[in-house]
Amino acid sequence: MSAAIYPGSFDPPTKGHVDVIERARRVFGRVIVAVGSNVRKDSARLSGERRAELMRAAVGDLEGIEVEVMSGLLVDFAREKDVRVVVKGLRDVRDFETEQEQALLNRTMYPELETVFLVSDVRHGFVSSSAVREIAFHAGEVRAMVPGVILEDVRRLYGRGDGQKDKI
Amino acid sequence: MSAAIYPGSFDPPTKGHVDVIERARRVFGRVIVAVGSNVRKDSARLSGERRAELMRAAVGDLEGIEVEVMSGLLVDFAREKDVRVVVKGLRDVRDFETEQEQALLNRTMYPELETVFLVSDVRHGFVSSSAVREIAFHAGEVRAMVPGVILEDVRRLYGRGDGQKDKI
Amino acid sequence: MSAAIYPGSFDPPTKGHVDVIERARRVFGRVIVAVGSNVRKDSARLSGERRAELMRAAVGDLEGIEVEVMSGLLVDFAREKDVRVVVKGLRDVRDFETEQEQALLNRTMYPELETVFLVSDVRHGFVSSSAVREIAFHAGEVRAMVPGVILEDVRRLYGRGDGQKDKI
Amino acid sequence: MSAAIYPGSFDPPTKGHVDVIERARRVFGRVIVAVGSNVRKDSARLSGERRAELMRAAVGDLEGIEVEVMSGLLVDFAREKDVRVVVKGLRDVRDFETEQEQALLNRTMYPELETVFLVSDVRHGFVSSSAVREIAFHAGEVRAMVPGVILEDVRRLYGRGDGQKDKI
Amino acid sequence: MSAAIYPGSFDPPTKGHVDVIERARRVFGRVIVAVGSNVRKDSARLSGERRAELMRAAVGDLEGIEVEVMSGLLVDFAREKDVRVVVKGLRDVRDFETEQEQALLNRTMYPELETVFLVSDVRHGFVSSSAVREIAFHAGEVRAMVPGVILEDVRRLYGRGDGQKDKI
Amino acid sequence: MSAAIYPGSFDPPTKGHVDVIERARRVFGRVIVAVGSNVRKDSARLSGERRAELMRAAVGDLEGIEVEVMSGLLVDFAREKDVRVVVKGLRDVRDFETEQEQALLNRTMYPELETVFLVSDVRHGFVSSSAVREIAFHAGEVRAMVPGVILEDVRRLYGRGDGQKDKI
Repeated sequence: MSAAIYPGSFDPPTKGHVDVIERARRVFGRVIVAVGSNVRKDSARLSGERRAELMRAAVGDLEGIEVEVMSGLLVDFAREKDVRVVVKGLRDVRDFETEQEQALLNRTMYPELETVFLVSDVRHGFVSSSAVREIAFHAGEVRAMVPGVILEDVRRLYGRGDGQKDKI
Repeated sequence: MSAAIYPGSFDPPTKGHVDVIERARRVFGRVIVAVGSNVRKDSARLSGERRAELMRAAVGDLEGIEVEVMSGLLVDFAREKDVRVVVKGLRDVRDFETEQEQALLNRTMYPELETVFLVSDVRHGFVSSSAVREIAFHAGEVRAMVPGVILEDVRRLYGRGDGQKDKI
Repeated sequence: MSAAIYPGSFDPPTKGHVDVIERARRVFGRVIVAVGSNVRKDSARLSGERRAELMRAAVGDLEGIEVEVMSGLLVDFAREKDVRVVVKGLRDVRDFETEQEQALLNRTMYPELETVFLVSDVRHGFVSSSAVREIAFHAGEVRAMVPGVILEDVRRLYGRGDGQKDKI
Repeated sequence: MSAAIYPGSFDPPTKGHVDVIERARRVFGRVIVAVGSNVRKDSARLSGERRAELMRAAVGDLEGIEVEVMSGLLVDFAREKDVRVVVKGLRDVRDFETEQEQALLNRTMYPELETVFLVSDVRHGFVSSSAVREIAFHAGEVRAMVPGVILEDVRRLYGRGDGQKDKI
Repeated sequence: MSAAIYPGSFDPPTKGHVDVIERARRVFGRVIVAVGSNVRKDSARLSGERRAELMRAAVGDLEGIEVEVMSGLLVDFAREKDVRVVVKGLRDVRDFETEQEQALLNRTMYPELETVFLVSDVRHGFVSSSAVREIAFHAGEVRAMVPGVILEDVRRLYGRGDGQKDKI
Repeated sequence: MSAAIYPGSFDPPTKGHVDVIERARRVFGRVIVAVGSNVRKDSARLSGERRAELMRAAVGDLEGIEVEVMSGLLVDFAREKDVRVVVKGLRDVRDFETEQEQALLNRTMYPELETVFLVSDVRHGFVSSSAVREIAFHAGEVRAMVPGVILEDVRRLYGRGDGQKDKI
């Protein structure tokens, strides 16, 4: 059975991420979700381990899916795991340009590593972790963007802390 | 009479912003300029209230235009004002992609809110507040980009403070 | 009450077109759908009048919506109708670039004419008349893309004529 | 073992096509190259069968690769073959937008069909069949773009017929 | 003194073309305008020689500018002229993608040939020959897009022939 | 002999930068590499002078190439040097949009200054200084991206300092 690595920051996980994971599992059988924890410029609100916990809750007990923290380069992680496929979701042209560059860079470092892309479902094409953070901070409604099982966690962890809407 | 909200940071206001406001007023009759003041990641050089003052000066006494500070989410501001149209200017492909995502996000939170776009005039298509800040800091010429009535304010508020050009 | 012109080829009308028309009606009150009939390079499969009939059926009896054939330039049609707003839907970056150019061209010919854009709903963002033509020709399923009331007409008018799927 | 369909016009096959096929074979094990033969608007210079012959020559005896002519819709071909993965190469933003639309359309017609994308190798990112046709017609050098084994065939089949360069 | 080739169809020449030619002349001293005449798929309304005449009239007697018809590949023309610089104008992202591909293709055929790009002036960024053809056919106003000296020729050559506006 | 300014941050210099410099020298004869040192928002890891030293090492003793630190606006630097051509490399659509805006801005401040663009070589189209910084920090392989003569400097200056790979 083949396998694919799905890397990302997942700060926090969204319905779009979970959709890509489930579709990648149907194509590749086994998916390792690699939660990036970049020690150099880590600006994520939550630690890599905390984000990995959220992701594990979001994907549930689906067979064939593992969630791990990745602290270095993707190419080193892939070599360590002996996996030669990376999967990414593409929402729009901006994603494509960023990911095309990254895929070509990784190929210079690890020529056997193949990056494959899935087009995001239209229901999730405009959902991003940064939008969820922004909206959750202002106590806006993120139900359409975040998996239900982690919805309360996301509201609490990314909210302002007082549970109040901004007075406008 | 209908109305539209024109949201932005306006840090500082530019001739491009004023052009969109005047054209939106012709289309919708009444325009509420919403000067964003994001308490979470506010990296604007000036306070929301100070930027709103600049904008009020820039648009002058045009009937049908109001300028207000907005501190939370646009959808909450629109509900508070009971306005169902948001207007934005599009300069280029990057603007389109950012604003398309934002419009679709807002629709999940407030389905009746319609975002309409105007194409920037060619004279202003390359003008951005960030470019004005950068050029003003180095005492460069921003006359073509900034409304004349706030030109001195912008030079003073965004300049280095010593009124001198960089020695090169 | 204001009004807007919604121009296009509509060869055939799609659910995406109808969605834009209904949303434009909420914003502008009255919408004139202008079915282009370009005598010079008319490559549409159906005549302008036949496409207008399909559009009339698709939008039904909605108050405030008129459907007309337009045979010349949009700016001339707008002057004739004394309407100063054109509305267009934007599905993706390609649409934006095409329509930005068109809007700027029209402004040189009719400076008071304002073009406003709505972002296509995500359910229709990938639907195009050319895709409908292609799929209908091969007797594929266009139900998700075409208004139900004209579905049979579209299958018949754009199909191969024998009602058979390609043998593969 | 999984399988993927690689559809295209291949008019003619290029080194870029062969590169995608070989990489798709490493990822999916088996690749069915589907040479499109669209009876409605077939503007290809060569027949589907002739293009399939060129492709068979170009990919040689690689195990796990089959080349077939496809005359209808991709979704019907995929159902017939009982394959649920389509693979496409992406050279640039234009490819991405075209293929994103196509993938989303196909999903409405066959929800279980997954389209996956590979980024073209930088050596082939600017190579297209239409460029090969144009250059070959003028007896220009297509050696860098066309697999060596079909180079003479391409020169002959797409050339002007007199084997002469244009006099300029 | 260096020199640059400026290739195009110029069907018809526009103010944007003339602007690029004049600016290229300031940078390179000498500019050879190469009017493409593609014998294979020549769909231009006017012959290459007729378009070259229009271009000669449009650029007038500017020293350092020559206008010639080019019937084959640009790389062959450049070798014949012993010129190693090609200049092109970029209006928008679509131009960039088309021209990037072309520049990289030409490099495979003639590695010493360097393509350099100028950004179109904002006044001409939305002007295209195809728009001029379309508008002139319908007797619309092309004065803002076409050099004054050839304005009457363009109206006559690209108009419908009856000098009448469409009745709408 | 003409001359061109090639501005950038060069944090650090890459093979892509050196390729553009060498090609610009062939076109313009003389190239002044302007290493930006922005006192306001300087987030470069190394000082302007240190980056200029790396660039001098990277370009070696090529006649016609000078490397200088530039601390203010490009238009002021160009006036000081009495040079009227700026050259930039374009890797992809993102570069194009950023540079188009910058070129148009500079034209408002210095109308005689012409910005010309070269398309990056395909071998370097995905290489960026930010990618080099990221990979070098994690002790990844940057040999394909950085000129050999400064390779050890880049590894040392941008590495984590302990010369160790991340443990994963």
